[in-house]
Amino acid sequence: MTSSPASPHDDIQIMRDLVKDYRDGFALPRHFYTSEAVYEHDLKAYWNGSWIWAGHVSQIPEPGSFFLFDYGPESVIVVRDRENTVQAHLNVCRHRGSRVCLKDSGTARVFSCPYHAWTYELNGRLRGARDMGSDFDRSDYGLFPVHVRVFQGLIFISVAENPPPIDDSLEKLAPLTEPFGLEQLKIAHSASYPVPANWKLALENYMECYHCAPSHKEYSRSHSLKDPRDMVELIEPLKERSLQVGLPTDEIYWTGSDAPRPVADIYYSRYPLYPGYKTGSQSGELLAPLLGQLSDFDGGATDLQIGPLNNFLVYSDHIVCYRFIPRSMQETDIQIVWMVNGNAEEGEDYDRETLTWLWHVTSQDDERIIRHNQEGVSSHGFVPGPLAEMEWGIRAFYHGYLNLI
Amino acid sequence: MTSSPASPHDDIQIMRDLVKDYRDGFALPRHFYTSEAVYEHDLKAYWNGSWIWAGHVSQIPEPGSFFLFDYGPESVIVVRDRENTVQAHLNVCRHRGSRVCLKDSGTARVFSCPYHAWTYELNGRLRGARDMGSDFDRSDYGLFPVHVRVFQGLIFISVAENPPPIDDSLEKLAPLTEPFGLEQLKIAHSASYPVPANWKLALENYMECYHCAPSHKEYSRSHSLKDPRDMVELIEPLKERSLQVGLPTDEIYWTGSDAPRPVADIYYSRYPLYPGYKTGSQSGELLAPLLGQLSDFDGGATDLQIGPLNNFLVYSDHIVCYRFIPRSMQETDIQIVWMVNGNAEEGEDYDRETLTWLWHVTSQDDERIIRHNQEGVSSHGFVPGPLAEMEWGIRAFYHGYLNLI
Amino acid sequence: MTSSPASPHDDIQIMRDLVKDYRDGFALPRHFYTSEAVYEHDLKAYWNGSWIWAGHVSQIPEPGSFFLFDYGPESVIVVRDRENTVQAHLNVCRHRGSRVCLKDSGTARVFSCPYHAWTYELNGRLRGARDMGSDFDRSDYGLFPVHVRVFQGLIFISVAENPPPIDDSLEKLAPLTEPFGLEQLKIAHSASYPVPANWKLALENYMECYHCAPSHKEYSRSHSLKDPRDMVELIEPLKERSLQVGLPTDEIYWTGSDAPRPVADIYYSRYPLYPGYKTGSQSGELLAPLLGQLSDFDGGATDLQIGPLNNFLVYSDHIVCYRFIPRSMQETDIQIVWMVNGNAEEGEDYDRETLTWLWHVTSQDDERIIRHNQEGVSSHGFVPGPLAEMEWGIRAFYHGYLNLI
Repeated sequence: MTSSPASPHDDIQIMRDLVKDYRDGFALPRHFYTSEAVYEHDLKAYWNGSWIWAGHVSQIPEPGSFFLFDYGPESVIVVRDRENTVQAHLNVCRHRGSRVCLKDSGTARVFSCPYHAWTYELNGRLRGARDMGSDFDRSDYGLFPVHVRVFQGLIFISVAENPPPIDDSLEKLAPLTEPFGLEQLKIAHSASYPVPANWKLALENYMECYHCAPSHKEYSRSHSLKDPRDMVELIEPLKERSLQVGLPTDEIYWTGSDAPRPVADIYYSRYPLYPGYKTGSQSGELLAPLLGQLSDFDGGATDLQIGPLNNFLVYSDHIVCYRFIPRSMQETDIQIVWMVNGNAEEGEDYDRETLTWLWHVTSQDDERIIRHNQEGVSSHGFVPGPLAEMEWGIRAFYHGYLNLI
Repeated sequence: MTSSPASPHDDIQIMRDLVKDYRDGFALPRHFYTSEAVYEHDLKAYWNGSWIWAGHVSQIPEPGSFFLFDYGPESVIVVRDRENTVQAHLNVCRHRGSRVCLKDSGTARVFSCPYHAWTYELNGRLRGARDMGSDFDRSDYGLFPVHVRVFQGLIFISVAENPPPIDDSLEKLAPLTEPFGLEQLKIAHSASYPVPANWKLALENYMECYHCAPSHKEYSRSHSLKDPRDMVELIEPLKERSLQVGLPTDEIYWTGSDAPRPVADIYYSRYPLYPGYKTGSQSGELLAPLLGQLSDFDGGATDLQIGPLNNFLVYSDHIVCYRFIPRSMQETDIQIVWMVNGNAEEGEDYDRETLTWLWHVTSQDDERIIRHNQEGVSSHGFVPGPLAEMEWGIRAFYHGYLNLI
Repeated sequence: MTSSPASPHDDIQIMRDLVKDYRDGFALPRHFYTSEAVYEHDLKAYWNGSWIWAGHVSQIPEPGSFFLFDYGPESVIVVRDRENTVQAHLNVCRHRGSRVCLKDSGTARVFSCPYHAWTYELNGRLRGARDMGSDFDRSDYGLFPVHVRVFQGLIFISVAENPPPIDDSLEKLAPLTEPFGLEQLKIAHSASYPVPANWKLALENYMECYHCAPSHKEYSRSHSLKDPRDMVELIEPLKERSLQVGLPTDEIYWTGSDAPRPVADIYYSRYPLYPGYKTGSQSGELLAPLLGQLSDFDGGATDLQIGPLNNFLVYSDHIVCYRFIPRSMQETDIQIVWMVNGNAEEGEDYDRETLTWLWHVTSQDDERIIRHNQEGVSSHGFVPGPLAEMEWGIRAFYHGYLNLI
């Protein structure tokens, strides 16, 4: 150990050296999951440089409707302004930094800071600030704008100054998701599963189905993704059915080194459920009215990824949205949102408990798995092992992640 | 990002650069409220270099009476010695560092360490240490002395080797506070309001009344400080009444760049309550017997500050003492002590609940405000905004703080 | 404070400077008990470079029997393999690092990772890993082996690549402990006393009896170690009795600078109980059947230390095993294991509550003492004081510790 500035007890320098030494196709070293400095860097460089799925337009139906979305130390106000446009602002007062909006969701005419009553328009402009003297120019002190992209009703935000250019990718994706009528969805249920692990271990868990067979018996009963051989066998019949019900069968694999740009990944692939399963249900039966323009179920499920952080699982009758929200270096919320056809009525057209059963039990499994993964990775003796081919999704994630670090 | 020693991932260097770049009249950057290294530095350089209000002589009425005062990792024994002098010692055994005194307050003949029974006199001298060999000289191992200044019964301590010279300031202050008979006070009630925020945000909250009108409706009903225009209107009649009841009307504004020395600030200013309010009560009526030599109430309240960390609000019939004790980087105790005339009897001359009502509800508000302030300041997107004129007290605090860092 | 790379805000450099400046015969400075970087270093350099007492062979009676032993972020599987040999493996999957074994103890035929089902033999060899491609060589990915030494039934492990050579020391020790029949012991009770203090303060507390007289009245009633003068007076009669019951009276003082190698300390010394005490009991009477080949009690107790981290107190009828497990920088588990003759039956030959009384009450005292020690040591004003002669054990510990840092 030397006393040079790059001596190995500088956590950021250690991280840089590890990035240089990283061996493609292997897991990441301990340091990425145990260092506070790396965690800070993750938030600043990766999360704040990415597009993040914040919610759905159905949450803000009219001018003044808003909701908060938060991760790490960040909070964002997503609001429909007077011109009916979805906007987003950093939820930080331009005066001395208080949270401006304290309610999780609601309808507002303005946002008035609870500390000194600086008051902002729905579009973020500073409307009033008492006694700030004559030199003060209100137009300099609007809420910091946050970038917004609304894709078929899904709202993505980015606090980056220059977010990853994702518009071409979304254009490419649009015809594939169009039949699902994503814009007309409504949220049926939301749940959060806190796990004492670094956010990357939670995301990695979602990015591979190598663990499905040993770890998720309920999922594995119905989803062929758990076994590539089964999937190959079942894929052609699925494609036929997909076309019949009105779904294109194209795929998009723009991830990792194939992504148009780091963290601008797009992935779209529909895979077969096992015979007898119309959707991701316990019984095999549908759980809710068909989505969008579908004429029937096709017995498939789409793995949809928009940017590396945002995952959607699209059945014929509902969508399960997954994100992994960092709370601290080793605290992560696995957040799941179930969405159904906007016309569906709870109690009549779907039952909340039945609808959410599969991914509730699966997430409980995952919480346990991810927790034990963190415990082992925290060992000073951990040496990253080789990824299985089925773990290509993790490799793709690392590609973008390590590029942005 | 460079690899030089001043590379931006050295938290103390970041702090130094920020001090250099600080823009006068603006809030402090995020780093000052989120860095463990800055917090450590705050304790060592600022708190341990300051005078801190520890308590009142009425707490230690006779030789051997003592109480503990603690902040951050420090604990100080404040004790009246056999010669009737108020002394203070670091509550750390000179052997292997155990806390010596474990009781919050009481009466002692000696302080005997609970670990190995090293025993100290009230004046800190080591009286006994078993089996330490012939080379051991007890006179080398007394408890470390802590500086003490008693000002009209208020006990201030400083663990600094050379505390800020404050005697001239206290001499200047003495005739202004003399009529309140501070030495004859007694403690009526103490309360602590823990807030998950850096101590500076809690102190800053107290240092300005720009937030009073929007945030504290109870306070604002009675205290004209919330509106400088009202204050100007009411100040001359107050001065007349003050003189009539026996109070000088001088003011002292030795704060910030006007302080004789950094962290040796003194501030004394009496401001009007609104008509109908004799004191800081809900009803407007007095809450306790008049203080000291006052012949009547004057309808005013004195903002008194002795050093930047110690704040007192002096009504005609009681005093509210405020301090903001750091517990960890983002944990602070808002400590309030209510004092009344030493002759007053609880239940007869004052009612504890009525007495403490105003600053209890106000502190509950403040806890919420300060918490939300920390949440927003923790955002990587926070950019310090301009201070209002009414926030001059924060500016003064920053002046001393940044000088000492 | 300079801006050189060795500037004093580099925690590891501060530690190195303090090691250089360390004054023999004095306590360690604050930094060793308050720095996260030092704690990490302690685990990597000291704990992971030492022999640690993991358990007893009676816990794994047959092939496949296993138990987990963990400290800091490490977890070790101790298992009896098919060839009846005690083996130990790092409990970290060679794939992506999950804990492999989740049960505290039990019997296994293989260890199958709960994440992706990589499956390991009892001897650690990787037996199965699905779909890893043709390049994958299972023999490269066995569980990392952990060194094992079984000494008269006591199992020691070390995760070091080259653990301290301790075999000569154990050979020297063997005849002294042989009469106790350590191999035939069984565990009567285990308990854990969490203390909010750095592990070194907990260990130091055990390493000296200077605190026994003032802090442990129950222990001091029966154990002459609390007073060297009493011990000297009683030692010769004890030696006579020891020889009569079949115990050698040699002693081994290979600790500190007299240790054959740092952290390869061995200490064996039998000291007298006070008259009327046959063992460490409240009544003075025996608590369990005599150990091993002893023909009678001798009224003594052996302080036995194997490596600086592992302490055993051997009475004529039971053994109390002590270790101080780091959980975080200021969280330590005081772990105690009571062992008795393997033939003894609970309820018949011993009563669990009576057996454990002394070291239960003593450990409750110690928890309090150690906690207050940490509180005082955390003060920025703490200056390490001189050690008493009775604290030579701490000095010995520092010798090895500072050498390995």
